[in-house]
Amino acid sequence: MALKYKVDLNCDLGESFGAYKIGSDDKVVQFISSANVACGYHASDPLVMDDTVNICKEFNVAVGAHPGYPDLLGFGRRNMQVSTNEASAYIKYQVGALMAFCKSYGIKLSHVKPHGAMYNMAGRDIIMARAICESVQEIDENLILLGLAGSAMEKASKQIGLKFAKEVFADRGYDDDGSLVSRGKPGAMITDENEALDRVIRMIIDHKVKSVNGIDIDVTVDSVCVHGDGEKALDFVRKINYTLGNSGIEITNLTNFIK
Amino acid sequence: MALKYKVDLNCDLGESFGAYKIGSDDKVVQFISSANVACGYHASDPLVMDDTVNICKEFNVAVGAHPGYPDLLGFGRRNMQVSTNEASAYIKYQVGALMAFCKSYGIKLSHVKPHGAMYNMAGRDIIMARAICESVQEIDENLILLGLAGSAMEKASKQIGLKFAKEVFADRGYDDDGSLVSRGKPGAMITDENEALDRVIRMIIDHKVKSVNGIDIDVTVDSVCVHGDGEKALDFVRKINYTLGNSGIEITNLTNFIK
Amino acid sequence: MALKYKVDLNCDLGESFGAYKIGSDDKVVQFISSANVACGYHASDPLVMDDTVNICKEFNVAVGAHPGYPDLLGFGRRNMQVSTNEASAYIKYQVGALMAFCKSYGIKLSHVKPHGAMYNMAGRDIIMARAICESVQEIDENLILLGLAGSAMEKASKQIGLKFAKEVFADRGYDDDGSLVSRGKPGAMITDENEALDRVIRMIIDHKVKSVNGIDIDVTVDSVCVHGDGEKALDFVRKINYTLGNSGIEITNLTNFIK
Amino acid sequence: MALKYKVDLNCDLGESFGAYKIGSDDKVVQFISSANVACGYHASDPLVMDDTVNICKEFNVAVGAHPGYPDLLGFGRRNMQVSTNEASAYIKYQVGALMAFCKSYGIKLSHVKPHGAMYNMAGRDIIMARAICESVQEIDENLILLGLAGSAMEKASKQIGLKFAKEVFADRGYDDDGSLVSRGKPGAMITDENEALDRVIRMIIDHKVKSVNGIDIDVTVDSVCVHGDGEKALDFVRKINYTLGNSGIEITNLTNFIK
Repeated sequence: MALKYKVDLNCDLGESFGAYKIGSDDKVVQFISSANVACGYHASDPLVMDDTVNICKEFNVAVGAHPGYPDLLGFGRRNMQVSTNEASAYIKYQVGALMAFCKSYGIKLSHVKPHGAMYNMAGRDIIMARAICESVQEIDENLILLGLAGSAMEKASKQIGLKFAKEVFADRGYDDDGSLVSRGKPGAMITDENEALDRVIRMIIDHKVKSVNGIDIDVTVDSVCVHGDGEKALDFVRKINYTLGNSGIEITNLTNFIK
Repeated sequence: MALKYKVDLNCDLGESFGAYKIGSDDKVVQFISSANVACGYHASDPLVMDDTVNICKEFNVAVGAHPGYPDLLGFGRRNMQVSTNEASAYIKYQVGALMAFCKSYGIKLSHVKPHGAMYNMAGRDIIMARAICESVQEIDENLILLGLAGSAMEKASKQIGLKFAKEVFADRGYDDDGSLVSRGKPGAMITDENEALDRVIRMIIDHKVKSVNGIDIDVTVDSVCVHGDGEKALDFVRKINYTLGNSGIEITNLTNFIK
Repeated sequence: MALKYKVDLNCDLGESFGAYKIGSDDKVVQFISSANVACGYHASDPLVMDDTVNICKEFNVAVGAHPGYPDLLGFGRRNMQVSTNEASAYIKYQVGALMAFCKSYGIKLSHVKPHGAMYNMAGRDIIMARAICESVQEIDENLILLGLAGSAMEKASKQIGLKFAKEVFADRGYDDDGSLVSRGKPGAMITDENEALDRVIRMIIDHKVKSVNGIDIDVTVDSVCVHGDGEKALDFVRKINYTLGNSGIEITNLTNFIK
Repeated sequence: MALKYKVDLNCDLGESFGAYKIGSDDKVVQFISSANVACGYHASDPLVMDDTVNICKEFNVAVGAHPGYPDLLGFGRRNMQVSTNEASAYIKYQVGALMAFCKSYGIKLSHVKPHGAMYNMAGRDIIMARAICESVQEIDENLILLGLAGSAMEKASKQIGLKFAKEVFADRGYDDDGSLVSRGKPGAMITDENEALDRVIRMIIDHKVKSVNGIDIDVTVDSVCVHGDGEKALDFVRKINYTLGNSGIEITNLTNFIK
């Protein structure tokens, strides 16, 4: 009997660069269903991309592209004033680069999730979001865009008929309108692990989450974003994996249920 | 009636970067059949790649990838001591990146030609050549490798069953063994344009070229490499295009005759 | 007899990078008194910096640093969300790098002028301007900051006792408050060369310029910024050099009159 | 009473980059007398350089520049075919950049030690070594070049009158001619910590070390190179610091005894 609920667990992988190591990819890959693989602009390099696609294949984890701004020095976290043409071309370049590694391992790229400052920008700015969605669609119309539910990325995807998967964050607070509470503000982070797990399960099963003001808001979850950097983060990934399984929720990648 | 002889004319395009412009791509593209498009490592950037694929499509010029070493500062002309794994991954990254632009314009990538120091290295070193050929084959087994006739790249291509196209240089002298006379040595450059044109036509029709020592050597020509940087180079491209046409030689891209 | 009026003519030099050439540095250097030399972040490389300092010394042109954002791809023209610590460290790094070339040629660095998006940001944002001024002062308290008159850079320089030189633009329109008319708006560019020359001379001698609204506004000129990229720009540099000389205005670098 | 023997302990510091961390600089800095600070080409960035100079000043550790090839991806460990002009300009650029941070902290740069592949190249190739020595001398004739005893760098330093400090490696085997046993060959690494410590003390006090073939060879030690990356390396730095002190050897930076 198939489990009643399905959800994807996504995590950023492949963020090392040359002699520089970040993350515990070989461990976290065992507990997730989708990897957002850095593509050499904000992090990663060709050898790292090769290795990352390799371990994703080994653990049957779906490979998605995680393109960012051309800012290795800032890890793609600093906003840059780029044009839609630039954003669009940066997406194509990075997604295409990762696709070559997927092809050499005989697997298909499943999704695209913009990184850091590009993710935030594309979540707010419908013009940029539209340019990004179109660039993804031009490469492969079957790709899924993974982004924040209710964001400009979701709207732009719908406008052009690009598949969209809604992600939630286990460790972040939500405002009444469904947006994330800005980092630094009270309630921005959910620091209690059990509370975080309970919230995630409720979001998946009941489609509800309590906002920072204590109001129940509606939420749809296709994917839960987790982090794999550091021992504590890795523990949480393990826990969320086990807890979801024990709650009758199947962890499976986006291509299995996003149409 | 089909013309009896076929040859490809290839030229490096898309070598501009950001605010920096190199070449007269919009002019030279009108006289060639194949473009070797830089992929962002030794030259080019995503916007330049987009524009270059666009004009290649407009003028029905086959798009090939021109991957190089990660050395924008040295334009990929300086030898770097990379491992086979690194070379292989650099090829995949760059070829994949360009493929995304091809896809977005609805065309297929035709060939791969390594650039500069990577071309020279892969021409001499069979281990590196093999790694490069395998990386190309892993991305798409229908891709053609474009390289120097008789080079390690040709040998490695044959070893693994990758399509290979032999290129000659209109403006370079040949040693008795078919290798290029090293730059700086007497006879390295053919500076007389008419002599260069005569040599090319003889190479195509008679499969012969006179070496720097005056000996006729055998040569097979799939493609003639021309340059588009500067007014003089552009003039020569125009001339070779007209002269070949007037000599009963059809200029057509590699995918039309390399099997 | 000394000329009554003194002014500096500054121009960006050394913007080439590797195989990529920009500008006619060897020509424009003959007509200016100060060079703003790119330092490898938005443009230039160590060989270019060496060559540029060399020709500046040959033509007795004062060498200033022209630090920018770490964005070679965008030529430092795109705004980046950097912290004051980052801006400060980027300034030190680039100014220091150029100083080494000055030392090897036995000359002193005269000034610092931020480039592009960093110039604009530091012109508006007093916090960033202050960080930049302090970083310059920490390297060498005798350095002159060259920036827009009335900008946050001028204010910040005064706050900490850093020498400041006010520059005007021959080819730009001014608003009633002395700020530049934004590019793209009517009156942003002064396209008539004679008008531009007349305006510059009036700014120097009468300390007045007509705003875009036709109102005379006060202006103090230490330096006039000119451009050297392209034949037309180069012609204008020649013309402004001759015209100032013929108007009894001495062209001399900032270290000769900024105290 | 002054200690009879003096030696410098040098370690590479400041190798982090952006979000990427390498080393335990804040710990290792407590046990060494000289730091070789990466300058942004093979590792480091302006913020890291600022922090590193800051902690060096705090712990009274001499700051030296550690310039490398422009190859962040390869951590400067891959040989690159650069010209003497390029090597020379790369040295000036990086050393100058670091000097700015030294100035802002009110300290003087003590020495220059080329990194990785550049160190190896300059150790073998007298032409390159000479170019590098001259570039250092042109920046500041009081700088000390730190390199392998008996290397081309030592010869070139003597030729032009640049101060030179001889370094030895605690964890490396030596051939009969005083050169290092190549990595990968038997005897290349001294893995026993006590043996390594004994060898270092004998090198300092008796000017002798046993070669890989068991022959006593002459050696002069100005500085001992240690590593700070990883818990084991850090332990060794602590041990060598204590052991030298207990053996009547004063650990002091190069400027105190290299004339």
